[in-house]
Amino acid sequence: MSHDLDVQAVTAQLAERLAATAVARDRRGGHAAAERDAIRNSGLLGLVIPKDAGGLGAAWSTQYQVLRRLAQVDSALTHVYAFHNLQIATIQLWGSAAQQADLLPRTLREHWFWGNALNPRDTRLKATRVEGGWVLNGVKSYASGSVGSDRLVLSAVEVQPDGSERQLVGHVATRAAGVQVQEDWDSFGQRQTDSGTVTFEQVPLPDAAVFQRPGETPTPQATLRTVLAQLILTNLYLGLAQGAYQQALGYLRERTRPWPNGNAAQAIEEPLLAHRWAELWLKIRAAELATDAAQQAADVALARGAALTAEERGAVAIAAAEAKVLAHRAGVDVSSEVFELTGPGATQGGLGLDRFWRNVRVHTLHDPVDLKLRDIGHFHLQGRVPAPTSYT
Amino acid sequence: MSHDLDVQAVTAQLAERLAATAVARDRRGGHAAAERDAIRNSGLLGLVIPKDAGGLGAAWSTQYQVLRRLAQVDSALTHVYAFHNLQIATIQLWGSAAQQADLLPRTLREHWFWGNALNPRDTRLKATRVEGGWVLNGVKSYASGSVGSDRLVLSAVEVQPDGSERQLVGHVATRAAGVQVQEDWDSFGQRQTDSGTVTFEQVPLPDAAVFQRPGETPTPQATLRTVLAQLILTNLYLGLAQGAYQQALGYLRERTRPWPNGNAAQAIEEPLLAHRWAELWLKIRAAELATDAAQQAADVALARGAALTAEERGAVAIAAAEAKVLAHRAGVDVSSEVFELTGPGATQGGLGLDRFWRNVRVHTLHDPVDLKLRDIGHFHLQGRVPAPTSYT
Amino acid sequence: MSHDLDVQAVTAQLAERLAATAVARDRRGGHAAAERDAIRNSGLLGLVIPKDAGGLGAAWSTQYQVLRRLAQVDSALTHVYAFHNLQIATIQLWGSAAQQADLLPRTLREHWFWGNALNPRDTRLKATRVEGGWVLNGVKSYASGSVGSDRLVLSAVEVQPDGSERQLVGHVATRAAGVQVQEDWDSFGQRQTDSGTVTFEQVPLPDAAVFQRPGETPTPQATLRTVLAQLILTNLYLGLAQGAYQQALGYLRERTRPWPNGNAAQAIEEPLLAHRWAELWLKIRAAELATDAAQQAADVALARGAALTAEERGAVAIAAAEAKVLAHRAGVDVSSEVFELTGPGATQGGLGLDRFWRNVRVHTLHDPVDLKLRDIGHFHLQGRVPAPTSYT
Amino acid sequence: MSHDLDVQAVTAQLAERLAATAVARDRRGGHAAAERDAIRNSGLLGLVIPKDAGGLGAAWSTQYQVLRRLAQVDSALTHVYAFHNLQIATIQLWGSAAQQADLLPRTLREHWFWGNALNPRDTRLKATRVEGGWVLNGVKSYASGSVGSDRLVLSAVEVQPDGSERQLVGHVATRAAGVQVQEDWDSFGQRQTDSGTVTFEQVPLPDAAVFQRPGETPTPQATLRTVLAQLILTNLYLGLAQGAYQQALGYLRERTRPWPNGNAAQAIEEPLLAHRWAELWLKIRAAELATDAAQQAADVALARGAALTAEERGAVAIAAAEAKVLAHRAGVDVSSEVFELTGPGATQGGLGLDRFWRNVRVHTLHDPVDLKLRDIGHFHLQGRVPAPTSYT
Repeated sequence: MSHDLDVQAVTAQLAERLAATAVARDRRGGHAAAERDAIRNSGLLGLVIPKDAGGLGAAWSTQYQVLRRLAQVDSALTHVYAFHNLQIATIQLWGSAAQQADLLPRTLREHWFWGNALNPRDTRLKATRVEGGWVLNGVKSYASGSVGSDRLVLSAVEVQPDGSERQLVGHVATRAAGVQVQEDWDSFGQRQTDSGTVTFEQVPLPDAAVFQRPGETPTPQATLRTVLAQLILTNLYLGLAQGAYQQALGYLRERTRPWPNGNAAQAIEEPLLAHRWAELWLKIRAAELATDAAQQAADVALARGAALTAEERGAVAIAAAEAKVLAHRAGVDVSSEVFELTGPGATQGGLGLDRFWRNVRVHTLHDPVDLKLRDIGHFHLQGRVPAPTSYT
Repeated sequence: MSHDLDVQAVTAQLAERLAATAVARDRRGGHAAAERDAIRNSGLLGLVIPKDAGGLGAAWSTQYQVLRRLAQVDSALTHVYAFHNLQIATIQLWGSAAQQADLLPRTLREHWFWGNALNPRDTRLKATRVEGGWVLNGVKSYASGSVGSDRLVLSAVEVQPDGSERQLVGHVATRAAGVQVQEDWDSFGQRQTDSGTVTFEQVPLPDAAVFQRPGETPTPQATLRTVLAQLILTNLYLGLAQGAYQQALGYLRERTRPWPNGNAAQAIEEPLLAHRWAELWLKIRAAELATDAAQQAADVALARGAALTAEERGAVAIAAAEAKVLAHRAGVDVSSEVFELTGPGATQGGLGLDRFWRNVRVHTLHDPVDLKLRDIGHFHLQGRVPAPTSYT
Repeated sequence: MSHDLDVQAVTAQLAERLAATAVARDRRGGHAAAERDAIRNSGLLGLVIPKDAGGLGAAWSTQYQVLRRLAQVDSALTHVYAFHNLQIATIQLWGSAAQQADLLPRTLREHWFWGNALNPRDTRLKATRVEGGWVLNGVKSYASGSVGSDRLVLSAVEVQPDGSERQLVGHVATRAAGVQVQEDWDSFGQRQTDSGTVTFEQVPLPDAAVFQRPGETPTPQATLRTVLAQLILTNLYLGLAQGAYQQALGYLRERTRPWPNGNAAQAIEEPLLAHRWAELWLKIRAAELATDAAQQAADVALARGAALTAEERGAVAIAAAEAKVLAHRAGVDVSSEVFELTGPGATQGGLGLDRFWRNVRVHTLHDPVDLKLRDIGHFHLQGRVPAPTSYT
Repeated sequence: MSHDLDVQAVTAQLAERLAATAVARDRRGGHAAAERDAIRNSGLLGLVIPKDAGGLGAAWSTQYQVLRRLAQVDSALTHVYAFHNLQIATIQLWGSAAQQADLLPRTLREHWFWGNALNPRDTRLKATRVEGGWVLNGVKSYASGSVGSDRLVLSAVEVQPDGSERQLVGHVATRAAGVQVQEDWDSFGQRQTDSGTVTFEQVPLPDAAVFQRPGETPTPQATLRTVLAQLILTNLYLGLAQGAYQQALGYLRERTRPWPNGNAAQAIEEPLLAHRWAELWLKIRAAELATDAAQQAADVALARGAALTAEERGAVAIAAAEAKVLAHRAGVDVSSEVFELTGPGATQGGLGLDRFWRNVRVHTLHDPVDLKLRDIGHFHLQGRVPAPTSYT
């Protein structure tokens, strides 16, 4: 199908573009304005926007393949791009028909790059009810993609008279009055995710800009958003594993010397090296198969629309969790172990081969992998699905 | 498809039948005549025989699903049945058109259960050229399915004038004059595989009964036989892992008591138990996905017929090797670790839950898993496919 | 030191004696009267009895070396013997001076073999207060060493007026009126541990035979008993790992054939085999070092006597837990993996090489290894020692 | 012993000093002149120099404890210091009595910091025989500790008339005419090891400065040098594991938040976290026990002097290899996994917690760990010791 081929070709070009400067930008950190523009200009911001709203209307499984490819060279920018897509899904899953009809075409028309200010563990952003909407005051940290974005999806808490808090979700323009994005992300990995801190001072949030009102119970369909987010992480881990594998393979073929006192005249013929290489490959392969299966299940669940049951949603969430655990391990293990096969030369600073471990190490800490395993266990032991949250 | 449903239903019935006595028969060992008759009567001996020869014409991937299901309860009888199917494939892959036209319908008509005498590491069976064929003398050990079989596929070596040996492959009736099957298999697992020792004394092998003559170089298509055999082993390991998992799950749900000093009031709610259960599940799941992928690749390769190239054949062999490594580990690990979750009560002799480990432990020693890993490594490092042998 | 040499020599002779029939007895299961007499006659029943009571006065660390050696060939009988020693420790740690002065010399004089009826998870044995003592009625299951023993240490619960239960510990003669030992142990491993079910009908327990009265809070010194018991299990797992390793090594050196398509002309020269063998060795080696360290710490703690603090006791318990986890894994992993190196011939029934896995698999289920890990974690994270129980 | 306490106190002070700037210096890379002076001024350059030559005369096992402690905070400077000690050992093991009598006191008197130019895989440095000695021309790369050193131990090859090469070992002043050290080390870890490239142009090497003449067969005693070097690496890996563990523990206690959807109200009480923490601890613990055992064996072997046999030397080399494998894994695994327990906050750039992984990752590539495993395997399978080389 010609349409599909275009996405692949554009992805390949973008990957090449990002790869050219990835090592240097990883060192520098900060905001990658030129590369975010390259993503904007690629046309891929419309990837998951439906065709009738002017987008490419790609399936989420297709989008995940794009992420996986891009993450092989630059997982930080890929994360920023993926979170744009996630906000598009937010509009579709949480927004009203009117909001969708408004925001989706405008996103394309005005070349919006969406970011987020949704960090569920930071509850310092408060919403106060006023006539026709709310007013926002406070702070959201770890807001991925916020720096350099055009629009933000945000969550805030409304304090009830009894002191309890209820969450609302809505959107604002990043450059609206009272919104300030601070570029303060400082971590040893994923150094260009633009995960700033967003401050809100008396920012109005009209009713029309609210996706989820306080106290609304989300439908199973709406809670698919977390599953989509978890599969974004999963594909990034997998892409990172693949990227480390490929770069190490190139090094091994061209430069690795025979092992001193080894069992073969060439490194590449060393049986112990081949044996371990297979172990790395199998980790990637298992993660790949499980991720493919989970994202196909996600496509099916999305197609079920409002008819999706909590049980069905839970089964997809578990499939995603299984893929995530395997991809997490593939990412962390492969990016660290390749060096035992390439030998010391591959640690040269200019090659930047350590960035895969640093990136995947930071990114895999989003939520504890051990809780995923516990949830998977409870599902298979008892058939119990995890309650939908921002992490499950 | 109704035809497919029949296979599933018949398989389920047969599984139930085998399960009823599996623990007792494992203790007893020896030949399971009644159960082999149950297989004969099920109609499944014709599973992979083409429809135009009167069989069910199932794909090999379908056959593997049958094996996986049966191995969950009785991997020894499943092995015997699988090796019957493998001899059917031998006729198709190695036999002439005339041999196929003769042997396939006769198998059904005369209710033949095929066994083998092909052990490549035992070269004591010699073939001497005579007018119109060969005469066989010598011994073949570890001949799976030989006890109680009707026909045997065998390999023998023809000693050349210079002392070198060349292999031929053919078939004889198990009850032919001069053929004797000794029931001497004694191992702590897979105790009813009927892997006897076959002695040949002046047994004629006419040219028409020869599948592969000495010195013939097999085509890539012909060497698919090893791949099919490796995937039989793979599905048995996987079925064994699943069988141990299921029986342990039943025990856990009904009988396991809360852990002393644990973190939950019920064993099944214990987070540490759920966590480990997920690890077991993921081993099975990864093996399952890789096995499904490999056997679909095998279907495709079989369909390529004589057009199959050595490279294509090699890629399928690697896919099978990958699945085999994962299934091997799932089998050995799951069958041993389930006890850490069920607790000591599950070691009661009458439950026979240890038979899964004993069976998979013995069966996984067919050829060294570490060489599979080495071959997988060389393939992904260098694109080099393993040379076709009886093991690769 | 000549005394030490005697213990080693006697242990070596006893090991040889047990080894001669271990495979056959494992098959048969049940009570091994002749072998228990061999232990009686060896003089080793007095190993940990103090010299001033007529015993050998060996350190517990010495005793553990004896257990480790014996478990290499027969872990079931070793368990029975170890639990005799544990009851001797019970007398020393829980008994009054008068009880020690009475029971320790009598043990030697009357050649008592002690067993136990202490299973903490079976609370069906009740004690009713009467003038000058208690009367026992009820049942204790999984009473290791009870069959064929002379004396039993037992625990029973006294039901309080409010329905709550408090435990007492005491001892009776196995052949006392009203005591009946049923030989009903049936498990796929540790098949000769004489772990019967003991029934008590109106059995008097005079005050003088009580080691721990209901409601007595044990001292840290007294709770060392659990640590000693855990180190018995640890040494048995370690001995089982060593036994499997040694028997497999013998097979490998004498009988294993070169790997088909391998990297060396002889199996023993195969680099992949040597590599995996090292992995097995390292598991044993780490367990051995940790066990040696823990049992030296136990010697020190025992020597502290009544001065032992709860913190000191906890630190030894953690050292024992660390050793136990490593020995558990060495036992389970080595006894299962050796076959991947020996090849299929070593699964021959007559060799009995599977008994190591069966024995260690059953024995390691005493209490969940995952809780040990949790306790170790809490200790190193927070410096918190586990509360003394029958398992910690 | 008061002398020992001094070493501990000085080590603790030096560790504190190095820790203060370790994160900043890791970022900067390059030569750490002030810190090398701090080492010089600490008095520890005389640690392993015999007392009769004016040194502290510490055992090598004591030296290893010092390294382990220092590597917890700064493994790069520790490596530089360790390699000074290794050159002292070189003088003792390879040098003549006259060389020892000259060089050891002078080292103390003139405050020499020794470096090396010995990289066995770089054979570009050639020695040409002249009257009374040799002349050196060529290059040595990866010369750890060369930048900023006072003296260098070097190896060069003498080309024979038939083109074959034979190695010699000697020493020169770093600031001698014709010697040039280039500061070109660029790796993502161990960034301050001063591992420059040393160029020699017509540098005279008089006979008196030669430790090992071409063609001399080293004694078992002399080849202990490799064992000492391997144990230096081992202790650095172990120290790195311990450093990551300690820094993560501090973070966990003070800052880690409860896991979302976890099993406890506080992170530190989470059973899944405690369980994994124990796994990390056990890796360190096993490595520590094996390293302690190996370095005690090394002390004994050094004390054997010229009487040391090849078999004895081989057994120590294997003990060191075992410790090295365990420490390698503890280092790589702990430094990567701690983040899964601390959570994402610990990836903040300023904490520098990633430096442990980067350092150990680079340092563990010295020689392939898989060959160590193979050698360990051959030793335990066949009793065969590895041939002494620069790596074994």
